[in-house]
Amino acid sequence: MSVPSDSFQSLKQQVLDANLQLPRYGLVTFTWGNVSQIDRAAGVVAIKPSGVAYEAMTVDDIVIVDLAGNRVEGTLNPSSDTATHLEIYQAFPQVGGIVHTHSRHATIWAQAERDIPALGTTHADYFYGDIPCTRRLSGDEIINRYEKNTGLVIVETFHMRHIEPMSVPSVIVAGHAPFSWGADANDAVHNAVVLEEVAAMAIATRSLNQGITIQQELSDKHYLRKHGVNAYYGQR
Amino acid sequence: MSVPSDSFQSLKQQVLDANLQLPRYGLVTFTWGNVSQIDRAAGVVAIKPSGVAYEAMTVDDIVIVDLAGNRVEGTLNPSSDTATHLEIYQAFPQVGGIVHTHSRHATIWAQAERDIPALGTTHADYFYGDIPCTRRLSGDEIINRYEKNTGLVIVETFHMRHIEPMSVPSVIVAGHAPFSWGADANDAVHNAVVLEEVAAMAIATRSLNQGITIQQELSDKHYLRKHGVNAYYGQR
Amino acid sequence: MSVPSDSFQSLKQQVLDANLQLPRYGLVTFTWGNVSQIDRAAGVVAIKPSGVAYEAMTVDDIVIVDLAGNRVEGTLNPSSDTATHLEIYQAFPQVGGIVHTHSRHATIWAQAERDIPALGTTHADYFYGDIPCTRRLSGDEIINRYEKNTGLVIVETFHMRHIEPMSVPSVIVAGHAPFSWGADANDAVHNAVVLEEVAAMAIATRSLNQGITIQQELSDKHYLRKHGVNAYYGQR
Amino acid sequence: MSVPSDSFQSLKQQVLDANLQLPRYGLVTFTWGNVSQIDRAAGVVAIKPSGVAYEAMTVDDIVIVDLAGNRVEGTLNPSSDTATHLEIYQAFPQVGGIVHTHSRHATIWAQAERDIPALGTTHADYFYGDIPCTRRLSGDEIINRYEKNTGLVIVETFHMRHIEPMSVPSVIVAGHAPFSWGADANDAVHNAVVLEEVAAMAIATRSLNQGITIQQELSDKHYLRKHGVNAYYGQR
Repeated sequence: MSVPSDSFQSLKQQVLDANLQLPRYGLVTFTWGNVSQIDRAAGVVAIKPSGVAYEAMTVDDIVIVDLAGNRVEGTLNPSSDTATHLEIYQAFPQVGGIVHTHSRHATIWAQAERDIPALGTTHADYFYGDIPCTRRLSGDEIINRYEKNTGLVIVETFHMRHIEPMSVPSVIVAGHAPFSWGADANDAVHNAVVLEEVAAMAIATRSLNQGITIQQELSDKHYLRKHGVNAYYGQR
Repeated sequence: MSVPSDSFQSLKQQVLDANLQLPRYGLVTFTWGNVSQIDRAAGVVAIKPSGVAYEAMTVDDIVIVDLAGNRVEGTLNPSSDTATHLEIYQAFPQVGGIVHTHSRHATIWAQAERDIPALGTTHADYFYGDIPCTRRLSGDEIINRYEKNTGLVIVETFHMRHIEPMSVPSVIVAGHAPFSWGADANDAVHNAVVLEEVAAMAIATRSLNQGITIQQELSDKHYLRKHGVNAYYGQR
Repeated sequence: MSVPSDSFQSLKQQVLDANLQLPRYGLVTFTWGNVSQIDRAAGVVAIKPSGVAYEAMTVDDIVIVDLAGNRVEGTLNPSSDTATHLEIYQAFPQVGGIVHTHSRHATIWAQAERDIPALGTTHADYFYGDIPCTRRLSGDEIINRYEKNTGLVIVETFHMRHIEPMSVPSVIVAGHAPFSWGADANDAVHNAVVLEEVAAMAIATRSLNQGITIQQELSDKHYLRKHGVNAYYGQR
Repeated sequence: MSVPSDSFQSLKQQVLDANLQLPRYGLVTFTWGNVSQIDRAAGVVAIKPSGVAYEAMTVDDIVIVDLAGNRVEGTLNPSSDTATHLEIYQAFPQVGGIVHTHSRHATIWAQAERDIPALGTTHADYFYGDIPCTRRLSGDEIINRYEKNTGLVIVETFHMRHIEPMSVPSVIVAGHAPFSWGADANDAVHNAVVLEEVAAMAIATRSLNQGITIQQELSDKHYLRKHGVNAYYGQR
């Protein structure tokens, strides 16, 4: 893959901007999060470097990798979660941006190894149904190619449970933390913010009412008024 | 309804100001909230446009609609919840302003489909009795004219349970989120802030003591010392 | 009681400063809190005016009342809770300042009508034993002279339970909210901040361990290393 | 121990900087926290003075003590917890910095007298296994040389339970609060921030799922990819 240096300036800028939103929305402690965006035509992904502080990050720190994970541009190591991002991009062709955080309330559900149940319209406006929790990885899947296998178990979860990834643009990985995605990096961060909010609401809702779930009709209505072909929310 | 353009400048400014209070008080994520105010003499309502970011909103973005929901002034689409606001204005003649948010703790009660119980004087200072949760809408009420039916079920809740809407100026809609109101848009936002605080307190109070409720005499005293004909709170 | 106008400028300034700390420490929503300080030599109390916003409050808004509650200086109405403050000052001669708030976590315990249990050294550093919750007032005590009776039930709680008010400088009033006190207004606010923190910690501690309480020896040690005659905390 | 005055300027500056991070990360109320750093070659420890406000603290306020606790440089009293720090430094030779706070969620676990269980990768990235809670001190250990005994019980906890202190760089002291450590003062504060976050997550995880713990393989993987000899996180 031969590309001239600095040819992905705009892509890198978008990824930088999206990464900088993570501390602004309170989704990260220290460097615990990363955002990427794909350029499918060029066959490359721009992603946050590993372990670099947000306040010091510049556009030149963003790393460009090809879909096999080889560094194409940049001098820093890409996020240690790069292989997870790549599996998601390869399996879900509509995904344009991915974000991984350890945001507190979504991570609590991941630690509890429970799906985040659809309990209200705040959830339904963005997620059509429960947000799935993956199965645990096997010991072997953890020891060998852990980050790649994390991506594969995310993909498996959506395939096995027949969930359309653009209709439920987040997952929680058992014992670990959430991943969210969207049309681009900015949209993925938007979904990560919503995920954290609905995760927080769901914890306390369960403390008040163990058995409740949203009505199916209400879930349909809210999801479709924002996302369906006849959507009427916003300035369309 | 024929009105000259820009005739509702002051009304729109009040509605803009009230909308901008929502992020300041931490009641909204992204664009998830809207405030309106009615001019009953002119027969119009000023309301937030749908899906516009608070930080970019100007007075010209505020939309004026008549009581049938037709746009009278402005170029943007009014909030998708406009029909709900209109039903409340029509049924409750003392209401001058309405606010809808997905503020975290009030929404938790809506998702739990439970009334917010009156548990202390913080609640009693503003709400005379429990804050009701509506019944669920039927499938048909959701599919057809959902936003209008949301307004109707709010009105039905107050009528069926004989609650005076100015004495309990908030409601939570089952599976959805709260609506608050007041003498004008600013007063409605004030009540939405209080609602969120008492909702948060009530969740944790229930975790410490399942059965407790406020004494009736204490509820009477606090509500009436602020709102009764002999009120003595503040600088009257 | 004849005093020249503006003779309490320093007292009023201290009370203003202490009141302005309430929003800074996140203890109040809107105007829901008030701080006072007594000048025992002059027989007067300076207190926040009722229902005035903190951001607009000036030293001239602070009201001076005598121990019978008559206004001695100032043009605004004193806090509606003035009679409660006065009863505490009269019964507890070492109290120099009092603060009342509806801070979230302390109010949760008041609503639950439970003492805040001494569960750790954070509590023991400031409060020697549980922070008591008063009994409910009778209907008659609520209807007639409610604020004075609130003060009386606070005093009764400490007398009946043999609690030394300077060793446990806070109380929670059943169904209502906390009062804290100290050597002066500033010290009272300090204790109100601590009360809110230990109240928050105690709620979650109870969710992890229902039966636990602090060891008596540990409570003794921490309280006495800060407050005993041989205190060795700080720069003494 | 004879050292010229101001010979530890750099050490004191690092300790000041680390102390000032405590309020920035929301780990302290008032003066409830202290950070120290050891210079093992010189046989001295720099530590926060007792009861001094963070906003007023300067480098000259930092106190230098020798390993017996004698003041070598500075005019203020060292933190009342100095003897605890000294025991940890003496028993754990790799520790270069120590921080003590009453951060809310870690303190809740201390009050509950429960280990903080390893529930996810956020925990595993920094702590290899549960974060232990010490046994209670005996009455005698509290009455005589309390702070020294607090250090000794921390050391005992790690020895008795065969925990390597650099692999689990925090402890919670029963009925009291946490201590964290690291290679230097800055690293210790970093670990204290992580401790508070995993403590908060663990409380809510337990409310959703009482029995869950992290898979051993996942704990191994995350700890070792950051801290093992083959670590590949960050820019190594």
